[in-house]
Amino acid sequence: MNFCSDNVTGVAPEIMAALAAANAGAAMGYGNDDITRRVEKLVAELFETEVTVFPVATGTAANALALSVMAPSYGAIYCHEGAHINVDECGGPELFTGGAKLIDLPGANGKLDAALILDELAEGTQGNVHCAQPAAVSLTQATERGTVYKPDEIREISELAHKYKLKVHMDGTRFANAVAGLGCLPADLSWRAGVDVLSLGGTKNGAMAAEAIIFFDRSLAASFGYHRKRGGHLFSKMRFVSAQLEALLKDGLWLRHASHANRMARRLADGVARVPGAEILNPIEANLFFARMPEPVLTGLEADGFRFYREGGPQAIRLVAAFNTDPAQVDAFIASAVRHAAAIRSSAA
Amino acid sequence: MNFCSDNVTGVAPEIMAALAAANAGAAMGYGNDDITRRVEKLVAELFETEVTVFPVATGTAANALALSVMAPSYGAIYCHEGAHINVDECGGPELFTGGAKLIDLPGANGKLDAALILDELAEGTQGNVHCAQPAAVSLTQATERGTVYKPDEIREISELAHKYKLKVHMDGTRFANAVAGLGCLPADLSWRAGVDVLSLGGTKNGAMAAEAIIFFDRSLAASFGYHRKRGGHLFSKMRFVSAQLEALLKDGLWLRHASHANRMARRLADGVARVPGAEILNPIEANLFFARMPEPVLTGLEADGFRFYREGGPQAIRLVAAFNTDPAQVDAFIASAVRHAAAIRSSAA
Amino acid sequence: MNFCSDNVTGVAPEIMAALAAANAGAAMGYGNDDITRRVEKLVAELFETEVTVFPVATGTAANALALSVMAPSYGAIYCHEGAHINVDECGGPELFTGGAKLIDLPGANGKLDAALILDELAEGTQGNVHCAQPAAVSLTQATERGTVYKPDEIREISELAHKYKLKVHMDGTRFANAVAGLGCLPADLSWRAGVDVLSLGGTKNGAMAAEAIIFFDRSLAASFGYHRKRGGHLFSKMRFVSAQLEALLKDGLWLRHASHANRMARRLADGVARVPGAEILNPIEANLFFARMPEPVLTGLEADGFRFYREGGPQAIRLVAAFNTDPAQVDAFIASAVRHAAAIRSSAA
Amino acid sequence: MNFCSDNVTGVAPEIMAALAAANAGAAMGYGNDDITRRVEKLVAELFETEVTVFPVATGTAANALALSVMAPSYGAIYCHEGAHINVDECGGPELFTGGAKLIDLPGANGKLDAALILDELAEGTQGNVHCAQPAAVSLTQATERGTVYKPDEIREISELAHKYKLKVHMDGTRFANAVAGLGCLPADLSWRAGVDVLSLGGTKNGAMAAEAIIFFDRSLAASFGYHRKRGGHLFSKMRFVSAQLEALLKDGLWLRHASHANRMARRLADGVARVPGAEILNPIEANLFFARMPEPVLTGLEADGFRFYREGGPQAIRLVAAFNTDPAQVDAFIASAVRHAAAIRSSAA
Repeated sequence: MNFCSDNVTGVAPEIMAALAAANAGAAMGYGNDDITRRVEKLVAELFETEVTVFPVATGTAANALALSVMAPSYGAIYCHEGAHINVDECGGPELFTGGAKLIDLPGANGKLDAALILDELAEGTQGNVHCAQPAAVSLTQATERGTVYKPDEIREISELAHKYKLKVHMDGTRFANAVAGLGCLPADLSWRAGVDVLSLGGTKNGAMAAEAIIFFDRSLAASFGYHRKRGGHLFSKMRFVSAQLEALLKDGLWLRHASHANRMARRLADGVARVPGAEILNPIEANLFFARMPEPVLTGLEADGFRFYREGGPQAIRLVAAFNTDPAQVDAFIASAVRHAAAIRSSAA
Repeated sequence: MNFCSDNVTGVAPEIMAALAAANAGAAMGYGNDDITRRVEKLVAELFETEVTVFPVATGTAANALALSVMAPSYGAIYCHEGAHINVDECGGPELFTGGAKLIDLPGANGKLDAALILDELAEGTQGNVHCAQPAAVSLTQATERGTVYKPDEIREISELAHKYKLKVHMDGTRFANAVAGLGCLPADLSWRAGVDVLSLGGTKNGAMAAEAIIFFDRSLAASFGYHRKRGGHLFSKMRFVSAQLEALLKDGLWLRHASHANRMARRLADGVARVPGAEILNPIEANLFFARMPEPVLTGLEADGFRFYREGGPQAIRLVAAFNTDPAQVDAFIASAVRHAAAIRSSAA
Repeated sequence: MNFCSDNVTGVAPEIMAALAAANAGAAMGYGNDDITRRVEKLVAELFETEVTVFPVATGTAANALALSVMAPSYGAIYCHEGAHINVDECGGPELFTGGAKLIDLPGANGKLDAALILDELAEGTQGNVHCAQPAAVSLTQATERGTVYKPDEIREISELAHKYKLKVHMDGTRFANAVAGLGCLPADLSWRAGVDVLSLGGTKNGAMAAEAIIFFDRSLAASFGYHRKRGGHLFSKMRFVSAQLEALLKDGLWLRHASHANRMARRLADGVARVPGAEILNPIEANLFFARMPEPVLTGLEADGFRFYREGGPQAIRLVAAFNTDPAQVDAFIASAVRHAAAIRSSAA
Repeated sequence: MNFCSDNVTGVAPEIMAALAAANAGAAMGYGNDDITRRVEKLVAELFETEVTVFPVATGTAANALALSVMAPSYGAIYCHEGAHINVDECGGPELFTGGAKLIDLPGANGKLDAALILDELAEGTQGNVHCAQPAAVSLTQATERGTVYKPDEIREISELAHKYKLKVHMDGTRFANAVAGLGCLPADLSWRAGVDVLSLGGTKNGAMAAEAIIFFDRSLAASFGYHRKRGGHLFSKMRFVSAQLEALLKDGLWLRHASHANRMARRLADGVARVPGAEILNPIEANLFFARMPEPVLTGLEADGFRFYREGGPQAIRLVAAFNTDPAQVDAFIASAVRHAAAIRSSAA
């Protein structure tokens, strides 16, 4: 009954099976193995284009390492003020870029606003030796607020970025949830909309520890291997990272997982909406959302053993559904909330 | 029939079982789980002292992150010229320390020579503002040449280091093999001999991807968590890294693995010694060694499907045994070598 | 007739004389000379406390190097969104700290608001491993808007900072102008109000290239020399940097310069206020201010050969007076503006 | 009577005059001034080719900043083990490159040996993801031992470097002394011999604080301005750095200074050679050399007030002549040495 995050869950049985299968015999290390090669092919098929793919094991590595080849040490990276790279990676992008500057911008529902990016770019910092040089935009899909960018929204930002010679990064730790939520093709939410590099999440989608950095702009990949190695993110027994990605991406497991998580978030939200005094704070577009509930309801839920983060203001909480969230747990959560809300009323009466 | 490295092997069944067991239910992320807590306790018992322990997933991370809190950006770290941190981490220590300098020193059989360290220290760079400031010594145990430091040898270096206010790091990617080889207590090869921080390897000893950074000097651990996080090495589903360490360290699996690997290396070496024209290049003290064999023997072995790295000079190769090396494979290797050596003689006759 | 900045001016004759005087005979390099030693004593007397002083040659070096010992690589530094360190140093603080994060905050008239800092600190990032760790606050005195912090305003921020274990840095590139503007003692605007490290400007106050980093918290100075050296900011012929500081600081030259510049800014502002259609955008508290004037007036001034930066919005400009600004130039500027403003009216009539 | 270094001297009167002349009127800051533009033209004429030039104020900045655009963070830079960048810049190149690795090589008389570089390059680290990537070679001209590379020696190294796609940097802090010593054209010792970037020294040749980074490979200069700015090395009153370079480079002052210093070193060496028991340790090719003298002679010289560094082994010292070394001082030094040497003999007799 833990709705804190989609990383408190365990690992999907299909992934565990793939790890066991990968454990047959010896294999050369550091990615020189068959599974890793198959993953790149699989990603190319799924995204309908040629790509260069690097598996890594954590989301922070996937983001910070991608940015390490997208912005120079004197560069600036535009992102939403609530972006994971800005507030949850303890300066990871700064470390791996050698000191690039994140320029964080406000934006409703966790989404970057092309107009604000344009304002920044129009300020004339490019070519001004006193200023960190605008080098990249990083979008989070789905966002930290559980919302998603539609293809046109991505394209608007990408076109602006490319016009000013900026590269476009997508933090896709919940990319699967966005694809499932929009019913789009993966290509439509990435390179066709102008994304140059995608950090595709696996860990929050049922893997143990597996992410893929996907270069659509393959020229950016030239020096990536060195950055990954010196960052300590080149696994000797790489096949076990790759096996997780393979299991997720073939046969559509990644989308089934994401769809389930999205449905559970919707079920949770529908339930919360019926709790007297509760308020949903964001559109429900992926597998997480923020809500506000009366303090006694929150306290009651906690007392009943439900776990969630209090975040986003007074009496606000974040609720996250995962690939294996049990509908019965969702219903139990709602029942508990409704009961505690009713108790307020009766005590007030 | 792959003797390239102890990381081309798969994962021990006990480790796979531990991963499966760890996959029960939800657990808070980022190390706030029971397994991770148990690992710290287990390490403390094994090393007979209080410690602070941080699990990570790769050897480069284990070394470079340990050094990140042992040397400032303007610091210097003494190491052997063949040390992994010096030649095989693509500048990882430089990245995580913010630019510290590795001062690499020669030394027979892959071992640092206290006299050479003293020469360096006596040069008066400490306190000289023009010079990178000597901050740490890093020893590799077992070394890259498959040899081991005895407790007294470690102590000699540690005492010298501490006299000059340097910290002592041990790259223990094959620490288990050294413990097994010497028949020492883990404490005798680490903190009792003056080691401040040990990067204890698991991956090469049968794990999938698990290492432990062990702080005996716990004051050095204060800021470590931030370095690990920004380096992208804080795993959200940490319990699966910790579960590997727990499986290895409890009930002595780590030492059984290492002892087996050492025995297989000894068996290989004894066999190689009998190959006409072959020469063993290092003392056999752990699970790897270097040897020289006539070129037709090497070519013949390769043609027979045996894999190994050519390294260390003309006709020199490195042979590495692992936790699961099959004695039959060892014997097949030797038989092949003997056969090819005989062919040389007969063709010469 | 250049009001762009207080660094477009030349060098004061007293400074040139001091350079000539310093050029007598040989002197040991790198600060081991008598003049450098005298500067530290002079600063101590002027600030009425023991200090450790390091001369450097540029304002960016003075700021970024000071911060290099005030925030770790995983640290966060609070500053005003318009602070020089945030927008005009091309990532200098990020370089010298090894990737620390500047958290930029809004604030009227270029001044940090203690309440907003408190909001940030109350968010609970300290000790949270996912977040850059709040380490320092940097104040600019006088600010980039030409305003000044009063001692009580500094103290309010310092007390808050120290309560949370943050260090307080002051970018004092125009500290002299603040002292002159407020009529305070240097100590009252620095250590007595809680400032730990002051980057004291000389270049904008009549020197050729000389700034002093003054450590009131002398424990922070321990490793500073190494950072300065590796940053390339340790001058071999240091006496010539120090001689500039000595000439400025002894006999009150620095305050006479600053007072003159402030008076000229006031004279300019009084004049601008009389220009029909003009508006002063900030309180006049030091030697620079922003103003808005009708476009034809700005164009007319430019055509008449007056130089200034257009900055701060449509029809807004920045006007800066310097140690050697000629009152006749100020009057000529005003006369030109008045004339062009009158031309608008007559053409409109 | 100070032979410690060519930076203990003061500033040449022509340079002081140029500073005074540069102090007329206002000039735009940060290099947007006429003098800085003239310096670039002057360098182009002197070196007979198009160049991009950036003035800076210290030798460490000139070297480390040049390297910042010649090697990536994961790069390796070959240099002599005694090179200033390796032992005297406290990790400056590591800072500005973001952690590149200096691979230091031995070599007689302070000179790199092409054969040893080739050995390194032939090891196959290029393209090997585990290894820092060979990116540049840095030569010191004249060397730290006071010797010089002839054009053919430079060319041999450059051709090797370029064959492997490495860039060639020259630390020319004493480039003028090499040009004077060899009687070559500046072009013959730089771009015609394959040098891509030259850090040309001025400070040790009579300037106050002025060096020029000269890009013969102008493509490398594209991002240089940002590195210089964030390093704090973009001077606001740049004209005063440039004026020093202009004064040195026009009318051949730089070569007259260097020739004088070389002559004085030769005079010193000739004298030392006549001191009984003394030994010159290097060829005399520029303005400094190492010598060994009996301990009583050294002590006697020190007692007589002569200053020099004891460096390079027991009873070894470094002697450096400068642009303004007085022949009478040289003769006094020799007379003192001869007197103390005679005293030994008589006391031994």
